[in-house]
Amino acid sequence: MPDFASRLTAVAGAVEQILDAILSAEPLRGETARPARLLAAMRHATLDGGKRLRPFLLIEAARLFGAHNDGVLRAACALELVHCYSLVHDDLPAMDDDDLRRGRPTVHKAFDDATAILAGDALLTLAFDVMGDEPTHPDAAVRASLVVGLARNSGLGGMAGGQMFDLDAEKAAAPLDRAAVERLQAMKTGALLRFAVEAGGIIGGASPADLAALSDYGAALGAAFQIADDILDAEGEAEQLGKRAGKDADRNKATLVSILGLDAAKSLRDELAQRAESALAPFGPGADTLRAAARFTATRDH
Amino acid sequence: MPDFASRLTAVAGAVEQILDAILSAEPLRGETARPARLLAAMRHATLDGGKRLRPFLLIEAARLFGAHNDGVLRAACALELVHCYSLVHDDLPAMDDDDLRRGRPTVHKAFDDATAILAGDALLTLAFDVMGDEPTHPDAAVRASLVVGLARNSGLGGMAGGQMFDLDAEKAAAPLDRAAVERLQAMKTGALLRFAVEAGGIIGGASPADLAALSDYGAALGAAFQIADDILDAEGEAEQLGKRAGKDADRNKATLVSILGLDAAKSLRDELAQRAESALAPFGPGADTLRAAARFTATRDH
Repeated sequence: MPDFASRLTAVAGAVEQILDAILSAEPLRGETARPARLLAAMRHATLDGGKRLRPFLLIEAARLFGAHNDGVLRAACALELVHCYSLVHDDLPAMDDDDLRRGRPTVHKAFDDATAILAGDALLTLAFDVMGDEPTHPDAAVRASLVVGLARNSGLGGMAGGQMFDLDAEKAAAPLDRAAVERLQAMKTGALLRFAVEAGGIIGGASPADLAALSDYGAALGAAFQIADDILDAEGEAEQLGKRAGKDADRNKATLVSILGLDAAKSLRDELAQRAESALAPFGPGADTLRAAARFTATRDH
Repeated sequence: MPDFASRLTAVAGAVEQILDAILSAEPLRGETARPARLLAAMRHATLDGGKRLRPFLLIEAARLFGAHNDGVLRAACALELVHCYSLVHDDLPAMDDDDLRRGRPTVHKAFDDATAILAGDALLTLAFDVMGDEPTHPDAAVRASLVVGLARNSGLGGMAGGQMFDLDAEKAAAPLDRAAVERLQAMKTGALLRFAVEAGGIIGGASPADLAALSDYGAALGAAFQIADDILDAEGEAEQLGKRAGKDADRNKATLVSILGLDAAKSLRDELAQRAESALAPFGPGADTLRAAARFTATRDH
């Protein structure tokens, strides 16, 4: 899939540039000052890292409707800021207690716990600044809709809620059943991935039917993404993941791999990737890059 | 000032009702589920507490322009959610390490550190959901403007940045000078108080001149608020504050009291309160409640 791989690389480069500009030392209008240490921690958390899958999904979904401009990139970066904040807080000693992320020290190791908490807070806050501000889209109704969608998929009833269920599960007497694992994952990782695709549609002015198709695609892709992650963890590709592998088994954590077994989990992953591709039928060959993204998400080795 | 006190009480009651409804167990459209433990921690952090000064300022500023409805209350609650999130995170062991808040256990004591981190994150996120969503104001441009203003005054260049400067100061070799203390306080506590007043103006459709007057009022009131806090701390009203007093001196922390001395600090506080009142001149007697708020802020004993 040379076209897909080159698109993914191109998007990552463009996103990196915008994130670098957003995280500049220059205060915006209405800001008093940008404290150097906090900004450095935010840059450590955000720049030079990751596949930028969420921005990619937003950008490619918007492109289906002919929208590709700097505003789309800004919206994509807002999503990435939320993703990066969640990693900073999840890595804290009080949460998953990870020292390494993408082979580099986590923010609380490179700085300290208090700075990491604040950096996460400020990244989350900045995401809403970027999403809501005029350069992102000329229509304020679109920006407000993106802000609300981002909040709803990231907060109590979305990503943060999923992390809470995950922490609950570690303390629970019995491992979660399949329905509970699926709900947890749909919130913790699925909600933001699905919303990335939906947000592209919102920016592009998608019809309700097209938005529903994008949502189906995003939900299936998100579920496939998480099973693929669980499979990678179970197979223990420590080096490729750049973090300790086999952690789920260490914690006796229920995943679809532990519940279904490795082979059935792989079948389900492939079935979800196929379902994601099928959901794109209304968009014809113009959605081939998103189809490739579904295959990549399911079969990635890192 | 019976009128002011009764207005403050009435606003606190109305805000409590809306916050209770916002933090209901029922998921909103687009949310998968609301985890009980996370919701309980968010409610612990938010309900039944505080003077609701930020909501009051927003509501009274909006009332200057004839705006008083449920949308105004929602915007006021969004501010309070941000204020409450900041308290939860500031109280964490990695930050100020406080066990009590308003005489009750802090969120990390009543729950645990991980839950407190997530509850803060989810409160912050929810604030943007509430601010950006349609019931808050019929005009999406107003909602988007409120979202961006809230973010900019709460994040890197505002409240979170002020907390970073505060943490920096604890580790610094020399105490901060007056200009650095004033900048820190303008960000840490001043920005959100000032924005509360500005937001009321934005909702009410204030002219640029009126907005500038409100901003001057909010900035002076915010500065007076912080000096009053430092004076209370120095005078050690442990019981009335409901938290350990004299903490600033314990930490050898620079405040305007330590820099100017108690008497000069009190003069400055009164001068700022007077400046806040004067800024309201364009609004005539209609702004008497806000004038009373400036006096209350400066002279409060808790």
